[in-house]
Amino acid sequence: MNNRIRMGMVGGGEGAFIGAIHRMAATLDGQIEIVAGCFSSNPERGRITGEKLGLTADRVYGDYTTMMRKEAARSAATRMEFVAVVTPNALHLPVATAALEHGFHVLSDKPAARTLEEVLSLKRTIIQSQLFYGLTHTYSAYPMVLQAREMILAGQLGSVRRVAVAYPQGWLSSAEDGYSKQALWRTDPTQAGESGCFGDIATHAHNLVEYATGLRMTEVCADLHSVVAGRALDDDGAALFKLENSARGTLMASQICAGEGNNLNISIYGEKGSLFWQQQIPNQLQVKRKGRPMEIFQAGADCVYLNEKVRSRCRTPEGHPEGYIEAFANIYRDFAIQVRAARNDTVAIDAGDSIEAGVRGMAFVRGAIESSNNHSRWVALEPLWNPL
Amino acid sequence: MNNRIRMGMVGGGEGAFIGAIHRMAATLDGQIEIVAGCFSSNPERGRITGEKLGLTADRVYGDYTTMMRKEAARSAATRMEFVAVVTPNALHLPVATAALEHGFHVLSDKPAARTLEEVLSLKRTIIQSQLFYGLTHTYSAYPMVLQAREMILAGQLGSVRRVAVAYPQGWLSSAEDGYSKQALWRTDPTQAGESGCFGDIATHAHNLVEYATGLRMTEVCADLHSVVAGRALDDDGAALFKLENSARGTLMASQICAGEGNNLNISIYGEKGSLFWQQQIPNQLQVKRKGRPMEIFQAGADCVYLNEKVRSRCRTPEGHPEGYIEAFANIYRDFAIQVRAARNDTVAIDAGDSIEAGVRGMAFVRGAIESSNNHSRWVALEPLWNPL
Amino acid sequence: MNNRIRMGMVGGGEGAFIGAIHRMAATLDGQIEIVAGCFSSNPERGRITGEKLGLTADRVYGDYTTMMRKEAARSAATRMEFVAVVTPNALHLPVATAALEHGFHVLSDKPAARTLEEVLSLKRTIIQSQLFYGLTHTYSAYPMVLQAREMILAGQLGSVRRVAVAYPQGWLSSAEDGYSKQALWRTDPTQAGESGCFGDIATHAHNLVEYATGLRMTEVCADLHSVVAGRALDDDGAALFKLENSARGTLMASQICAGEGNNLNISIYGEKGSLFWQQQIPNQLQVKRKGRPMEIFQAGADCVYLNEKVRSRCRTPEGHPEGYIEAFANIYRDFAIQVRAARNDTVAIDAGDSIEAGVRGMAFVRGAIESSNNHSRWVALEPLWNPL
Amino acid sequence: MNNRIRMGMVGGGEGAFIGAIHRMAATLDGQIEIVAGCFSSNPERGRITGEKLGLTADRVYGDYTTMMRKEAARSAATRMEFVAVVTPNALHLPVATAALEHGFHVLSDKPAARTLEEVLSLKRTIIQSQLFYGLTHTYSAYPMVLQAREMILAGQLGSVRRVAVAYPQGWLSSAEDGYSKQALWRTDPTQAGESGCFGDIATHAHNLVEYATGLRMTEVCADLHSVVAGRALDDDGAALFKLENSARGTLMASQICAGEGNNLNISIYGEKGSLFWQQQIPNQLQVKRKGRPMEIFQAGADCVYLNEKVRSRCRTPEGHPEGYIEAFANIYRDFAIQVRAARNDTVAIDAGDSIEAGVRGMAFVRGAIESSNNHSRWVALEPLWNPL
Repeated sequence: MNNRIRMGMVGGGEGAFIGAIHRMAATLDGQIEIVAGCFSSNPERGRITGEKLGLTADRVYGDYTTMMRKEAARSAATRMEFVAVVTPNALHLPVATAALEHGFHVLSDKPAARTLEEVLSLKRTIIQSQLFYGLTHTYSAYPMVLQAREMILAGQLGSVRRVAVAYPQGWLSSAEDGYSKQALWRTDPTQAGESGCFGDIATHAHNLVEYATGLRMTEVCADLHSVVAGRALDDDGAALFKLENSARGTLMASQICAGEGNNLNISIYGEKGSLFWQQQIPNQLQVKRKGRPMEIFQAGADCVYLNEKVRSRCRTPEGHPEGYIEAFANIYRDFAIQVRAARNDTVAIDAGDSIEAGVRGMAFVRGAIESSNNHSRWVALEPLWNPL
Repeated sequence: MNNRIRMGMVGGGEGAFIGAIHRMAATLDGQIEIVAGCFSSNPERGRITGEKLGLTADRVYGDYTTMMRKEAARSAATRMEFVAVVTPNALHLPVATAALEHGFHVLSDKPAARTLEEVLSLKRTIIQSQLFYGLTHTYSAYPMVLQAREMILAGQLGSVRRVAVAYPQGWLSSAEDGYSKQALWRTDPTQAGESGCFGDIATHAHNLVEYATGLRMTEVCADLHSVVAGRALDDDGAALFKLENSARGTLMASQICAGEGNNLNISIYGEKGSLFWQQQIPNQLQVKRKGRPMEIFQAGADCVYLNEKVRSRCRTPEGHPEGYIEAFANIYRDFAIQVRAARNDTVAIDAGDSIEAGVRGMAFVRGAIESSNNHSRWVALEPLWNPL
Repeated sequence: MNNRIRMGMVGGGEGAFIGAIHRMAATLDGQIEIVAGCFSSNPERGRITGEKLGLTADRVYGDYTTMMRKEAARSAATRMEFVAVVTPNALHLPVATAALEHGFHVLSDKPAARTLEEVLSLKRTIIQSQLFYGLTHTYSAYPMVLQAREMILAGQLGSVRRVAVAYPQGWLSSAEDGYSKQALWRTDPTQAGESGCFGDIATHAHNLVEYATGLRMTEVCADLHSVVAGRALDDDGAALFKLENSARGTLMASQICAGEGNNLNISIYGEKGSLFWQQQIPNQLQVKRKGRPMEIFQAGADCVYLNEKVRSRCRTPEGHPEGYIEAFANIYRDFAIQVRAARNDTVAIDAGDSIEAGVRGMAFVRGAIESSNNHSRWVALEPLWNPL
Repeated sequence: MNNRIRMGMVGGGEGAFIGAIHRMAATLDGQIEIVAGCFSSNPERGRITGEKLGLTADRVYGDYTTMMRKEAARSAATRMEFVAVVTPNALHLPVATAALEHGFHVLSDKPAARTLEEVLSLKRTIIQSQLFYGLTHTYSAYPMVLQAREMILAGQLGSVRRVAVAYPQGWLSSAEDGYSKQALWRTDPTQAGESGCFGDIATHAHNLVEYATGLRMTEVCADLHSVVAGRALDDDGAALFKLENSARGTLMASQICAGEGNNLNISIYGEKGSLFWQQQIPNQLQVKRKGRPMEIFQAGADCVYLNEKVRSRCRTPEGHPEGYIEAFANIYRDFAIQVRAARNDTVAIDAGDSIEAGVRGMAFVRGAIESSNNHSRWVALEPLWNPL
């Protein structure tokens, strides 16, 4: 019997791109074992996935409530310890709620729920449950984003003055692009929530800004719209924003930029220097300091000039690139450490993400929509994430 | 006696960085000769500059009105044919006006004048004069910006949907940076005009957007402010904007981004593909088209795949980089062709820039200030550039 | 009971960097399970590794001969099916030989053995065994290297004319660098074999050339030496070479290039176009064709312009970078497919690497040494890899 | 009357690409005036060029010997002071010799002459003349190459250990490419000399190595050949080499790399760090030092971290790129300073290039040919450049 953390998964059946990524990420470091799953609303598809994973048939479930109930009924030594939620957005809240109510920690795909109200409700459930809850803001989990954060928190840039974040994608750039399985639910308000592009990817950009700078976004002035005819939800938008220290920023998120892949990038300008990072070349961080040559910080477990925490997020020595799956795996590894601590009743580390980030992300989406619907007036975000 | 176009210069005495650049650019292609100048308010400094340029003492003037008067009095075969205005902003209008009134074409550093009202007044003067007037929007004169423009005008990207332009600089990032000669006038409202950063560099970004896309900016929603304590004018700001085809955009301009050099860059997203260009690597244009590998177009007189006009803007074959001085020289070369046509009474080419661009640039600055002063409300620009 | 391929591992105990990488790579795609191991010559360290992996104590072995014997004695349904050899070089041959003799397929770290004679002997053993044998030439397993290969084999570059490959590292750039565990055996002739740098990394460069071009290297003219005083083996060298179609090339490999990480890169020049790839930005392939803009091919499971085989080597869509671990995992995945075919007695795919590549790699090292020892005279390689 | 240095030009008539570049470079900084020329063997073409340059008809000559004689007969205050030689290779020697014999300094396109014997003979003529002689090794005149040189001379990399230089071009990649005016003489032994590609561009690579490292190349082991059928001279080749401090290197030069532009690049590896520079992005120098992030040094007159001499080679502040013409102009500016010093009878600065570099360049070509003709045996270069 190994000592791994036991995970159950909801969603991620055959053909679901993100399910396979989650499984690779979860198991990469040998800390987590998948022991149960409810992989698909289609029972046959779920069964096949479970079989491929080597699960016994009694731990492949046809619906998630049964899964929660039956797993909770198992012995403490064999039942799953946490649930990974990798369904379309509309199920994030009910699955997470059911899991928490049955005593399971939850690691969920973002967004935490479809709307701000839902995610605030989820937050209350989590607090009551005294269980761990994590969100896969994957891009913030790259080592060089942590390096940026640590440099900023240590004051190496001086105070942050301006941030520019952009997340151009092109995969929904024409009407025909909207018919794939992934596209369909993302452009459907009943499944995706009240926003399309902003809910799906501007939230990543928002989280990246807050995580990298250590500063909360407090005001937004936005302009969202739908470029491709016939879409009910925004597929493109941009915003001006302010951070809590009164730094200013621009945020652009779009899914109709034909020719773009997944070009998330961020520039952070401080009083002593600036940083630039792009997701497609994730192992490099550009550091520009006044009166000095630009520096390219490089990820690597052996890079002596990196922050110690950053090095521990690297699995390979300098010059051997890691990627998206490893960033994802960093989230799972940190979460597994928390769950193990809970198992052992010791104090857990902070998993680096939380329902708070999820609430602020949804408050940002809500604020952006409100602003956009009111001639781009400035909307304060704190009243949204922290309502009376 | 050579056949070159005869140029006079106002401003650009010893120690003025931009004066030397203008002279290199003006003479690079052997089309223009500097025959007269009023280089400095300091007579001794002006005299030295003239001597270094090989001018005879009688054509080095102590004030520009004398220069205009005496040059106008010379024979048609020897007097200067146009005036390059390279003074601080506050003198752009009076010098240009004096030159036009004495019958000389004018090529002026941007901005055309300090305020929108001034530039509208200048426009009337130009129209009355029936003379040529050009502005050195240098960045729009790089060959690969023209390539972007030509591709867009030819419909190769489909309709433009979104633009992102940013112009981060760091040279005014601290209070101490403000004491150089160049910094002093740029941060002084009486000399620079009603805006600091936006008047100085956001206008370049604005022009680059309009020139590259062939679309006018029609609305702006902006947030300008002063980051370094004690500055009377903005040193940082950003805006959302709309183009005349209802495409959206973001514009950022800042002079307090410590560590940045002159990192002007633009992304243009269309329905079929996207373009990216950055001024610091000016000979490359990234072209991303749906379903195809990214392409890197490379400047070069012999690059067969480039637009013919673009190739004629290149002096060297592929792989031999040109730079900022050559971009500047493209403006002078085009202007010299106009002046030569006027001399010969033949039809001139369009010099690719004009007082119209200058008016729209100042309308943009005015609109951005108005928006920023009114909680970033959207401001329409056409009523500003085209008042009743 | 799951259906995974069962793997045993020799080497890779706690603290061995490459062992952990192999385990992540082996298990990433859910096709392979580690069921047995002999992880360290230090029994306690081996025991801890096994425990962490969740192995039962009876399948963690103190020496590899016992492991082979006892595993062979297990039932066909439970015994390991192949052995991953991740020891220092000196053990590659004896471990692989023992595994083959006991009926286990072998996937070995490169080089296959310390010397050309050893590897030729191993080849005979493999042939007799009728088992699969693979070598982890990891860099050749990146998707974009396969893209290069497929484009060349399809004639898209015309005939290959010239190749330039370089592998500069800096980790042995001073005498003090030689004292780590990894460095010690690599600089010790009894453990590393007859070459240091060339055996360790020039073999990767050699394989990359042959794999990407589909052409065998036939002649070499080399200059190897030891830069850091006191080293018994080469730590730096370069060679001119010829390929079987008479294309020419240069190869450089060095471990004393202070400041370099792992900067393996290759340029391939053909009669119609050229390719460039670098390991540190592995998801991009530069393609330069005559009279066309440079193209940047981007890895991605959904990149429609990529070769179909290449797409199947990608786990993520365009713009989500994969890295070194995924390249490694491609080797394991292909090998698992072979082993599964053998298990099921069906026809296997070609795993893309083989003892032949290993033999030619060692012939190249031997040829380079001979050349270097003889004033860099040209040495023919075929007589070495294919002796009478 | 201005105070500029008076230059005469031989070659560079209409349609000659390099003539126009020389003229732009010569006049860019306002230090040099073209006063006389013998631009073409075609009198009409020469006349047109002279007229465009504003030369009086009596200073446009039909043959260079007449030019030398008549200019020498003019007053000291008006006659040309130096001659720029921009003809095809075969005329470099006779024109330079004639100029020197008539008392004119010479700045010549490289190579100085067709063969080693010729250039040694020219060296004697120069010494006897006590006049200045310069060669346009343009790539070594980029500011960031000087930065590399100064860092190495100051010991910042420790001793140089290895160099890799490559100069791939594609413009002669097919037989059809050989019919342009420029291609014809370059592939004709009677005009180009004893080597094609190596004489034309490997000499640039050789000079770049020696200039950047401050070390002379002492031995070469080369393999030259002709790839395109029917060429009498090499169009492709590579070499191993040794520098005087026993550092090793590789050099590749080719004109048949289809798809390449002018991709000259150099890597220099030292005991403390490494440098990388590429001509196509000339304003950046990559600096990799052990245990530190990679640094990107950026050209700029105001870059405080650059060597003072380097800054004085920059005309623009950081972030405003300079290019090939400016590099060329650096050579002319330095040469003009020498000539002015000679005019004023003061001591001149070292122009940074000399007949010595030209002799060593031709010795390198001769050595490479000898080596290649003798199965790539090592050939010592000093006996060639410094014969008894």
